[in-house]
Amino acid sequence: MGAARLKWYGWGREGEGMSAEERAFVLGRYHEKFGARDFAAVPVPKLEDLKLPAPRLAPPAALEAFCSRDAYDRAAHAYGKSYPDYVRALHGDFAVAPDVVAYPRNEAEIAAVMDWAGESGAALAPFGGGSSVCGGVEHAGDRPSVTLDLRNLNRVVEVDKTSRAALIEGGAFGPDLERQLKPHGLTLRHFPQSFEYSTLGGWIATRSGGHFASLYTHIDDLVESLRVVTPKGVLESRRLPGSGAGPSPDRMFIGSEGTLGVISQAWMRVQAKPTFRAGASLRFSDFFAAARAVRALSQAGLYPSNCRILDPREAYNTGAGDGGSAIMALAFEGADHPLDAWMARALECCADHGGAPEPENAAAGLWRNAFIRMPYSREFLTPAGLIVDTFETAITWDRFEALHAAVTSAVERAILEATGVKGEVTCRFTHIYPDGPAPYFSFHALGRHGALLDQWRAIKNAAGDALMAAGGTITHHHAVGRDHRPWYDQQRPDLFALALRAAKRALDPAAIMNPGVLIDP
Amino acid sequence: MGAARLKWYGWGREGEGMSAEERAFVLGRYHEKFGARDFAAVPVPKLEDLKLPAPRLAPPAALEAFCSRDAYDRAAHAYGKSYPDYVRALHGDFAVAPDVVAYPRNEAEIAAVMDWAGESGAALAPFGGGSSVCGGVEHAGDRPSVTLDLRNLNRVVEVDKTSRAALIEGGAFGPDLERQLKPHGLTLRHFPQSFEYSTLGGWIATRSGGHFASLYTHIDDLVESLRVVTPKGVLESRRLPGSGAGPSPDRMFIGSEGTLGVISQAWMRVQAKPTFRAGASLRFSDFFAAARAVRALSQAGLYPSNCRILDPREAYNTGAGDGGSAIMALAFEGADHPLDAWMARALECCADHGGAPEPENAAAGLWRNAFIRMPYSREFLTPAGLIVDTFETAITWDRFEALHAAVTSAVERAILEATGVKGEVTCRFTHIYPDGPAPYFSFHALGRHGALLDQWRAIKNAAGDALMAAGGTITHHHAVGRDHRPWYDQQRPDLFALALRAAKRALDPAAIMNPGVLIDP
Repeated sequence: MGAARLKWYGWGREGEGMSAEERAFVLGRYHEKFGARDFAAVPVPKLEDLKLPAPRLAPPAALEAFCSRDAYDRAAHAYGKSYPDYVRALHGDFAVAPDVVAYPRNEAEIAAVMDWAGESGAALAPFGGGSSVCGGVEHAGDRPSVTLDLRNLNRVVEVDKTSRAALIEGGAFGPDLERQLKPHGLTLRHFPQSFEYSTLGGWIATRSGGHFASLYTHIDDLVESLRVVTPKGVLESRRLPGSGAGPSPDRMFIGSEGTLGVISQAWMRVQAKPTFRAGASLRFSDFFAAARAVRALSQAGLYPSNCRILDPREAYNTGAGDGGSAIMALAFEGADHPLDAWMARALECCADHGGAPEPENAAAGLWRNAFIRMPYSREFLTPAGLIVDTFETAITWDRFEALHAAVTSAVERAILEATGVKGEVTCRFTHIYPDGPAPYFSFHALGRHGALLDQWRAIKNAAGDALMAAGGTITHHHAVGRDHRPWYDQQRPDLFALALRAAKRALDPAAIMNPGVLIDP
Repeated sequence: MGAARLKWYGWGREGEGMSAEERAFVLGRYHEKFGARDFAAVPVPKLEDLKLPAPRLAPPAALEAFCSRDAYDRAAHAYGKSYPDYVRALHGDFAVAPDVVAYPRNEAEIAAVMDWAGESGAALAPFGGGSSVCGGVEHAGDRPSVTLDLRNLNRVVEVDKTSRAALIEGGAFGPDLERQLKPHGLTLRHFPQSFEYSTLGGWIATRSGGHFASLYTHIDDLVESLRVVTPKGVLESRRLPGSGAGPSPDRMFIGSEGTLGVISQAWMRVQAKPTFRAGASLRFSDFFAAARAVRALSQAGLYPSNCRILDPREAYNTGAGDGGSAIMALAFEGADHPLDAWMARALECCADHGGAPEPENAAAGLWRNAFIRMPYSREFLTPAGLIVDTFETAITWDRFEALHAAVTSAVERAILEATGVKGEVTCRFTHIYPDGPAPYFSFHALGRHGALLDQWRAIKNAAGDALMAAGGTITHHHAVGRDHRPWYDQQRPDLFALALRAAKRALDPAAIMNPGVLIDP
């Protein structure tokens, strides 16, 4: 922790944030949408002014060395990074702050914290990097609570260059694990938007979606084996490139969101550092033409590393387009061979649907930069009373256009009803499959301080209901957490819930692991 | 069932089998190995001479229309197609024959059979096509038993050409479902060796490995959603191209081998009929040179549809080689674009390791034909007293050569110890991954009638122990069944077994579903 500490309110580390120029750009877009008013209204409370509830729990002497009850630690671990998280923090509402934050340094200390939590009747929430945007890391506030932060388990333990695999600890942040892989010429290349401030264990626990637009979309397929600390002990799966021996043990823990245990280590499939690249930015007359090109591409067996499309407004909002065209960022990469043949065919697929490459591949870079910087905007947009959020889904191609229409109109209507002001809903694709895309929606509304949570909830409810009715998933890569439970409970087969609850009771009999997330015991 | 009925002993339908010429070729190889003796010694019993135990169970009137207690039905459903299955059938040992065979015509009838089995304290084994080579479909014989044959659920119910997906019933055999997809220009292209005599539901329940040597190796990734009839009711997952909403419901049932329920329908990801192909047969000086070429290929991002290597003896035994070289069958296929660039780079990877293409691409075709016909040989090799069997695994590249050495020598030693005669162990790769291959071993031993089961067991034990010790999986795509239990129980994390048992108890509280397979409740 030589670097500045992570913000307790906001994205990244203290001292980081958008430049004045970036802020002006982002706010400029909202002035265009909602008029040239002054949005900066509500001050962010100071850490020293926060009223944290008195801790209900003190770590036993044996755990003291790596546990904290400091205000900073508790405040910084109270929330993830969702819109309602920012609003509640802005209100100084820290009723859900953990009583204790534990920073174990090894598996034995993770197990010791679990044992103690079990004995104390405390809830235990694994934090990852705390980048959850769906209420995945907070406590209910109804019982003593401990948050587990694995930042001290951050090593690349072993590298198997022959098999292109690496054993990595669960608490490693993205840049940290990439830095350790680099001397070996290897890279995981899993770059979720939260890359800098999320961990390997968190990615696996939430089925994170990364860099690769096709094929290796989720972290799932990059997992070769896992070590998981559960309240019943440590589980380790065998390192195997493939297996047909019963249901996959790994797949029960991939996506378990801390409800079954804590991922302490994983053997991950890594890549050779790419040395060949082919990239293009394309314009399409409209989003659906671009989507048809993506469908052709996704079914062509070409597997682009990037194939993201932005609708005209989404492109405009991020500075990647002028608002008149949909944009596609297309790329192939690899360490083995030139990719000209791949790109040539992909461009033909695009041309079939009216896609024209830009002479300079600028839009993709502009969008990428905006995408990486985007999380820094929430810390000033929320105090400005703006309700800006995103949600994502996946849907088969046959139902995509209907889902897009239904979701867009439901959310537009909900914004108008909740705020009285016309908002905006935009869409892009983040990942693609032969049988369908993963559409990602952003919405922009002018909220009212004092009503932000209710307004957001009304909009979010409309989005979730529309996704369910249109046949999508409530989340493609943001996970379920607490916020998506109402729709997850509809989407998930009841008998699977029955089986999963039984599995949870077997591994976590005292029901201490992340209660409220995914399933109720 | 217009065609001839399936054999109760042997592969395929009555009247089918190897030609005299094929038989002579296969037996010729064994004469070379073991001397020019007459192998054809023991006669196969006649169906009418079999002594089946008296049925302990009679179906209630409501189920009679689709249930049978005929000798043929019971004998034909007593066993799968494993080596010990053939030996026991040859001995006329039908103690494990089901009391009743049910041929439900819809989900309601599946559920009705389950209810009846539960009330009767009967065990229920789903049969698929009965091609199990690991004891996946037999009963223990210790309690009343019903076998479920889904051949009447054989329709392609719906085709979604836009998303390239099809809803297919679980009892459809390979050729049947392909015939129904064909008019749509679509194909599942999942061609396990058992393709003609195995079913979609069986493939999914056993994590079958198919045609594609890379990428879509197992059926797992082709499953878009499932309907499963469990003793607690019917479960249906949502059709989604991808999802991050909790652990995948489908993955709990993929590989569950009939222990949790019966797969009645699945939405499957299908392909456009390939119109572009590039294929080659290559020779390598030895198997490990070929393996190094495969490693390069598997890590190159080329994703060949076929990339199978045979060691020199394996190539010789199937007629694909002269015994002096290892052979690679390499192919790319697709419906979108010429594959010259792909093949050109793949050939470079091979050349780097000494791989030379044959002027005529003959070996791949010869091997493929032998591969498809192979299952017909067991019905005459077993009566001939030959012990011929295969087993497969997967292992990371760093440990492949050590596993190969350890397994080969352990099995060779076991053959010599068990039979007193030197045998042969050969190897090929069936599927490849960036982090390792799926090696597939064949062994050939001269057994002794009266001792065949013990001799086979001794060899099988040596193989299983060696695979476990070398870090492999006990099965890459043959499933666990009853035969692989001792090693599966070692390989599978104990705490995963705890969770899976709990899940099973939740879905199958009376423990009727395929007892003995995978887990004990």
